[in-house]
Amino acid sequence: MKVLGYAAQNATTPLAPWTFERRAMRPDDVEIEILYCGVCHSDLHQARDDWGFSQFPLVPGHEIIGRITAAGDKASKFKAGELMGVGCMVDSCRECSPCSHGLEQYCEEGNIQTYNGRDRFDSQTTYGGYSQSITVSEDFVLRMPEGMDLKGAAPLLCAGITTWSPLRHWKVTKGSKVAVIGLGGLGHMALKLAHAMGAEVTLFTRSPGKEADARRLGAHHVILSTRPEQMETVKSTFDLIIDTVPYEHDINPYMPTLTLDGTLVFVGLLGDVTPPVSTLPLILGRRTVSGSCIGGIAETQEMLDFCGEHGITADVEMIDIQNINHAFERMEKSDVKYRFVIDMGTLKA
Amino acid sequence: MKVLGYAAQNATTPLAPWTFERRAMRPDDVEIEILYCGVCHSDLHQARDDWGFSQFPLVPGHEIIGRITAAGDKASKFKAGELMGVGCMVDSCRECSPCSHGLEQYCEEGNIQTYNGRDRFDSQTTYGGYSQSITVSEDFVLRMPEGMDLKGAAPLLCAGITTWSPLRHWKVTKGSKVAVIGLGGLGHMALKLAHAMGAEVTLFTRSPGKEADARRLGAHHVILSTRPEQMETVKSTFDLIIDTVPYEHDINPYMPTLTLDGTLVFVGLLGDVTPPVSTLPLILGRRTVSGSCIGGIAETQEMLDFCGEHGITADVEMIDIQNINHAFERMEKSDVKYRFVIDMGTLKA
Repeated sequence: MKVLGYAAQNATTPLAPWTFERRAMRPDDVEIEILYCGVCHSDLHQARDDWGFSQFPLVPGHEIIGRITAAGDKASKFKAGELMGVGCMVDSCRECSPCSHGLEQYCEEGNIQTYNGRDRFDSQTTYGGYSQSITVSEDFVLRMPEGMDLKGAAPLLCAGITTWSPLRHWKVTKGSKVAVIGLGGLGHMALKLAHAMGAEVTLFTRSPGKEADARRLGAHHVILSTRPEQMETVKSTFDLIIDTVPYEHDINPYMPTLTLDGTLVFVGLLGDVTPPVSTLPLILGRRTVSGSCIGGIAETQEMLDFCGEHGITADVEMIDIQNINHAFERMEKSDVKYRFVIDMGTLKA
Repeated sequence: MKVLGYAAQNATTPLAPWTFERRAMRPDDVEIEILYCGVCHSDLHQARDDWGFSQFPLVPGHEIIGRITAAGDKASKFKAGELMGVGCMVDSCRECSPCSHGLEQYCEEGNIQTYNGRDRFDSQTTYGGYSQSITVSEDFVLRMPEGMDLKGAAPLLCAGITTWSPLRHWKVTKGSKVAVIGLGGLGHMALKLAHAMGAEVTLFTRSPGKEADARRLGAHHVILSTRPEQMETVKSTFDLIIDTVPYEHDINPYMPTLTLDGTLVFVGLLGDVTPPVSTLPLILGRRTVSGSCIGGIAETQEMLDFCGEHGITADVEMIDIQNINHAFERMEKSDVKYRFVIDMGTLKA
């Protein structure tokens, strides 16, 4: 099936319309007409081949909301017309230990990314949600809770689950003390989710101007990380720090703000921990530095259901697909509150 | 009470005999005649003020084995003549959350180190085990298991508990896969303890010559960390890596050998994690870098009892106190298998 999308033809040209072939339906597949697609910072990185593993043409998009238009013979979970989501993964080996524990993101053979991945069966490049439709195994499709605002829901599929998974894994609950570093797409979701889980939530930021917004999004406290006297007030405080900053930065000022056995978890940085972290706060407080990658499929459904119950969606700015390159430029300057979402209906325009 | 010991008078002179005053007995104190004292690498660091917080004169020694010679009015746990140990701590606030959970090493007010610390009550410098006797609250004294070889037992009080505590905290049990980086005082204890706990134990080393010894000490496997093809065979293998290396070193080659949710724990390095660790293995496998500091008093007793049951002591080389400066020199060249222990009877010679 021919579908229209927006693709990067190489690392240096802007995204532009491109028609490509979606695979023929397999028995466990569903076909989804795409209504909305969130714009993740990693879309930009991969369109420009910043990480060196992009396959062109590249159709980004892994925060996909749509409606089922067809289902394979053995796809029995969903029916035509239902509203669905597709996140960062479309497949995994389904047999290894992580897969059998609902941790498909850590599949030992590598999960299959929604775009810029390689299909397990036909070895074709996967294409993402900046397109009319997508064909996916129903096992990697999420059910959208009744009544949820679908535009704001799109970023839950990446920004939402990426912050939800560490909150759950490190057992955040009522009364937990959670801090978030950075207030972007991931950071604003971390504030909302941690708040709704009953945690006492702090935002670390370098920008005094972000305080009011942070409080509106769920932060009980805002600490300017550039002010040592403010940092001193939260010494040995946090059970969990979610570090959403996507570029290299110094984590040493944050480490002493963790409590005994506390964890700082990277969710946004693919790179080096530099300047180097000192072992002193690790050894003297059994503190931990860790990382977390998106979340499993069952966990993503759990997060969506939680968001449905608590009325949580992302704060989004809607754009037409024709403005995607401008949106990328604004995103590079952090000029978005807090996520662009493409109205994919505009693709027909 | 005047006692004789060996002290560093400043950072540059060798240790030499020195007579100093031990505090008067407090009601909960016991007085211990010191029989043996292990020589820890940190003794050398502090005698030379490598960490910048040494108080001179400095009497090192925190792997102390001795016999009770007197007890205060309210010291009821032990009686004169019993064989006891004193490790790295002689006091803590005893009231904070860590203290009330048996984690005195992480006392929020800071534990009181056996030497080069400051007494909580009289603010006097504490003096360690390179001396005739020590006066300690009975709550920080350990009971030596019946029949244990006391010379080999001394290093259990620091090298033993420092490796035992992370093995227990990260729940190593029968079948766990544990690796140890570095085969010195700490490393050789980690091999023995992990083996006795039923783990499958691997030593990472840069020295092919250490293999036979490692196997004798409890390693089931030995991996040359300088050989990429050997490292490749242990990809995604270990639940826990105990990193005993006391100087800056690259941990990046070890990170992929951790399994999903595996932990590398620093126990020997007070410094920077440099070259910087990449977040990729952290994020893509939820792997963790942590640290661990000695162990609590109850946990130390548990370790001693375990060692008593399993016939475990350290491999030691006995020295006279008069040879301590030569032992320091040899220790700097890693020329010891695997711990020097001072026969404190030689102090009278």
